[in-house]
Amino acid sequence: MKSIEDLGERRIIEIILQYLEKMPNMPIPFGDDASAIDIGYGKLAVFKTDMLVGKTDVPKGMSLWQAARKAVVMNISDLAAKGVQPIALLTSLGLPRSLTKRDIEQIGKGMNAGAREYGAYILGGDTNEATDLIISCSALGIVKRHLLMRRSGAKPSDIVAVSGPFGKTTAGLKSLLEGLPTLTGMKKTLLDAVLMPHARLKEGLILAQTQAVTASIDSSDGLAWSLHEIAKASNIGFFIDNLPIAKEAEEFAKINNLNPTELCLYGGEEYELVITVAPKLWEKTKNSVEKVGTKLIKIGKVTKEKSIILKTEKKIFQIEPRGWEHFKMTRGATS
Amino acid sequence: MKSIEDLGERRIIEIILQYLEKMPNMPIPFGDDASAIDIGYGKLAVFKTDMLVGKTDVPKGMSLWQAARKAVVMNISDLAAKGVQPIALLTSLGLPRSLTKRDIEQIGKGMNAGAREYGAYILGGDTNEATDLIISCSALGIVKRHLLMRRSGAKPSDIVAVSGPFGKTTAGLKSLLEGLPTLTGMKKTLLDAVLMPHARLKEGLILAQTQAVTASIDSSDGLAWSLHEIAKASNIGFFIDNLPIAKEAEEFAKINNLNPTELCLYGGEEYELVITVAPKLWEKTKNSVEKVGTKLIKIGKVTKEKSIILKTEKKIFQIEPRGWEHFKMTRGATS
Repeated sequence: MKSIEDLGERRIIEIILQYLEKMPNMPIPFGDDASAIDIGYGKLAVFKTDMLVGKTDVPKGMSLWQAARKAVVMNISDLAAKGVQPIALLTSLGLPRSLTKRDIEQIGKGMNAGAREYGAYILGGDTNEATDLIISCSALGIVKRHLLMRRSGAKPSDIVAVSGPFGKTTAGLKSLLEGLPTLTGMKKTLLDAVLMPHARLKEGLILAQTQAVTASIDSSDGLAWSLHEIAKASNIGFFIDNLPIAKEAEEFAKINNLNPTELCLYGGEEYELVITVAPKLWEKTKNSVEKVGTKLIKIGKVTKEKSIILKTEKKIFQIEPRGWEHFKMTRGATS
Repeated sequence: MKSIEDLGERRIIEIILQYLEKMPNMPIPFGDDASAIDIGYGKLAVFKTDMLVGKTDVPKGMSLWQAARKAVVMNISDLAAKGVQPIALLTSLGLPRSLTKRDIEQIGKGMNAGAREYGAYILGGDTNEATDLIISCSALGIVKRHLLMRRSGAKPSDIVAVSGPFGKTTAGLKSLLEGLPTLTGMKKTLLDAVLMPHARLKEGLILAQTQAVTASIDSSDGLAWSLHEIAKASNIGFFIDNLPIAKEAEEFAKINNLNPTELCLYGGEEYELVITVAPKLWEKTKNSVEKVGTKLIKIGKVTKEKSIILKTEKKIFQIEPRGWEHFKMTRGATS
């Protein structure tokens, strides 16, 4: 009998899905960033759950306040990718007996901070005893059905863009966990990428309003994985010719003799949005997002051919479907 | 610095609540069975999260299929107490590496079974690696605002009633965990109370329709605790003169020299509804619930005096505010 280490997270999810009866007319299919039910009046209630586990999701150097905030923010990021304002969250806690009253206070403050940063509130939850620290959040929001952004609408010749550069989180993790050196003045940026992630909520909301986005996903499993997910859901491929490597990740790669392309593509927990947009609506879309202070980066095009190709100055190759996966990998093992 | 063992689950929740900013006009206050947001059109989206942790919530003898089903059913029970039909659930899993493919299949099947028994579907979730088995569920339903049942409306002279007798779960646990003997023909009933709990959903839905219920709660923390919660939220007391002891619990207590009153009052995970009803609407309410096959048991009255009094044939005494609490107690320690 196979152990779950052999299976890996994605195969485990496939196995479970086999046994779940499907709700008729699901507004968002299984496996998307969030789920939804039709509440009538042309609206959907969109909700999402994502669990933070101390031993895999809280690196050395992250405080309990930061961990609790992150547990909330990672759920908000998924609603952001759907273009949905989170209204309320529930948090279900598993707490090791070793925690102190001060620890509990930090968890309460961190969860509240994560929610309030994005205009949401924590309405309730559940507290349990567990061996690991567990912070499982659920986020709920309401959206007009026609504004919901899905993964499945990317069309050949659409532009693919991201809400920011990639690679800082993986570089920051390597600095935290492996003690790799960083350039002066760059350390805080890299560590903040790990310890204080931000959901692209205002960008997601404005993108939904443009109605120009044909597919959208958050990049919590890494850029490569996000592209593969859109490709699978939309039945298309990508030609990427402008890899959005963060300059800090590039510098970090240089001084540590790492491959910057790997840092950019195969990391995780970046929380940038990866979107596709019809070419004729690109300028309008770009301008809309600039109004909330963010510059969309055009990284390539959607192709009819199903492969995901990266063209750099030196060569052309396929982007592999890999990234952060529980059970199978340890963080940073991909770079 | 106090450890969380000294604090106990309820104090931990109080500490966390101090740091959570309150959403204005919350339709259901903190600490109720479920939470809600106003979605307009006179309706609320009601949602709930509750986590099952292997080491505290899965007794010896409970299969993974049963554990996964229970994780879903305990969330549905909370929506039942509010009079809300659950539509969809999300499940967030923490899985120990020791699990096999067959174990994962059992978890998938059990979760699906729990949801489908009550007309709900599992729409998605999240899978993680954890030391303990963790099944954290969130349930979502929509209800007309005026039909929502709260904890806070019990009035002096209201009748207090329950949807079934108490004590079987604690007796079943003692049989499972401590090997205490049961009478022939009774074992299955007691074990089923532990292994195959049922949410009183059809009862909760019909009770909400009557609009006669002034307060409602599920009894997952035990009958005594549930009465204290309604008393606190409604600012009243109770005079209980008909303790709803299950005949199987009474027999079990007799042959094991246990106190049946303790089994009935201070257990947990019974999933019966505890409700209060205006006296003039009692007959109508009782008849409505009988139509779905369940006999409400009148156990006493709401009093203006804040204490919770039990009158038995032999004596009169106060029902204490205790029941199952994580960190502080071990299951069954109360009897």
